[in-house]
Amino acid sequence: MSGVLLTVAYDGTDYAGWQRQQNALSVQEVLETALSKLTARSVTVIGGGRTDSGVHALGQRALIRDGAVAHIPIRSLPLAINTYLPPDIRVMAAAETADGFHPIRSAKNKTYRYVIYNGPIMSPLYARYAAFIPEPLDIAAMEASANHFQGSHDFAGFSSTGGKVTSTVREIYSLTVNYEEPLITITITGNGFLYNMVRIITGTLVLAGKGKINPINIPSIITTKDRTKAGITMPARGLTLINISYDNHCFSSL
Amino acid sequence: MSGVLLTVAYDGTDYAGWQRQQNALSVQEVLETALSKLTARSVTVIGGGRTDSGVHALGQRALIRDGAVAHIPIRSLPLAINTYLPPDIRVMAAAETADGFHPIRSAKNKTYRYVIYNGPIMSPLYARYAAFIPEPLDIAAMEASANHFQGSHDFAGFSSTGGKVTSTVREIYSLTVNYEEPLITITITGNGFLYNMVRIITGTLVLAGKGKINPINIPSIITTKDRTKAGITMPARGLTLINISYDNHCFSSL
Repeated sequence: MSGVLLTVAYDGTDYAGWQRQQNALSVQEVLETALSKLTARSVTVIGGGRTDSGVHALGQRALIRDGAVAHIPIRSLPLAINTYLPPDIRVMAAAETADGFHPIRSAKNKTYRYVIYNGPIMSPLYARYAAFIPEPLDIAAMEASANHFQGSHDFAGFSSTGGKVTSTVREIYSLTVNYEEPLITITITGNGFLYNMVRIITGTLVLAGKGKINPINIPSIITTKDRTKAGITMPARGLTLINISYDNHCFSSL
Repeated sequence: MSGVLLTVAYDGTDYAGWQRQQNALSVQEVLETALSKLTARSVTVIGGGRTDSGVHALGQRALIRDGAVAHIPIRSLPLAINTYLPPDIRVMAAAETADGFHPIRSAKNKTYRYVIYNGPIMSPLYARYAAFIPEPLDIAAMEASANHFQGSHDFAGFSSTGGKVTSTVREIYSLTVNYEEPLITITITGNGFLYNMVRIITGTLVLAGKGKINPINIPSIITTKDRTKAGITMPARGLTLINISYDNHCFSSL
């Protein structure tokens, strides 16, 4: 086998994002520490996607490349690792990967969810997992705007500086807006996302919901590639990485 | 007016319950401190129900009896108080009460919700708000058991010691079990609840879900009044006080 792919869920509130870094605690560091304790050797992982500080995950992926955990039956692996993890990080599943698998390069698509609490006063039970917008939003205008994002576009105007990419073209397969008072849930699936792209698209849908932009102008806002025409970068707390999907042939066991 | 009734929501994780006490931080104490800062005088409140350490609320009630906040327009009151509260406690609404109103004695019924995360591994995003049961549960058996709790019964066997009550008879108006994988949500409305009664009823439904008791035996378990025949007291984190309901004539404004 080429490695073991973990599915990792976390409450990102108390972490400086997924990726290991100096001077701040990341999810990757906590996971690698747990794996090192479990195996009594130094273990590193490759993440399927970088999530920023405060962003949550239900379906982050992490590849253990070498045979570090080969002595542990794959079915026992999640519970074994979880013994060494705090409750806000959990390995939900593990699968052996086929030769040549890479958690980023082999990914077919990613799904993110953004939750907005749209009521006059923020409920304490959603404060960790939703952004707060007290003004009423026009859900139909948000849905109409969402439709214009679908397809392949150059999303240069929907990215924060700091990302290192050669192309800013991405394809969005689906972008839906679901309203169950008082929660607005935006779910987006695409072949990849630029830095802060989901949070900026959400900020743009919010502008439409506030009546500050007309949904029919979304295509021209995209083509201007002008960051200042799009909405704000919404807060991290509302964002959750739901899934990174791979072809079945990527796995030697599921 | 006799007073102002606040609707209070909180994430109970970091509090030693609703009621003010020595040596531990309660929601009541934090709320009274906020009210005292807002009004520059000492303010106390009477809660609509005692929630235990770690229990959450969406619809707790708190009565400000005297005219402490009479100088603040009732519509501005929630936002004004929230300025002095941490994000895990929020005043959601305020209403002026009619003469003779009392938040406990005037209550018609209370509704609690209990959430169980029923999957193999606990999701970090539900860890604060749901109890974790990894074994598959028989939802139909839980529903059949729930039906037997409805109506007026002596619930002496479904109470922890420590409650000070003269009668242990309570009426349950509705008890429903809703399953949306992986969450089991139990919602119970009654004219009142004994100490830990909701958590013990839930523990008993879980016993039925595990096949350890037969739903048809629930009536006899109730009539034995024997605490040891019922299920365990489920953890606080899964419990939320949803609402305390009053007749409309209790309010001089709504």
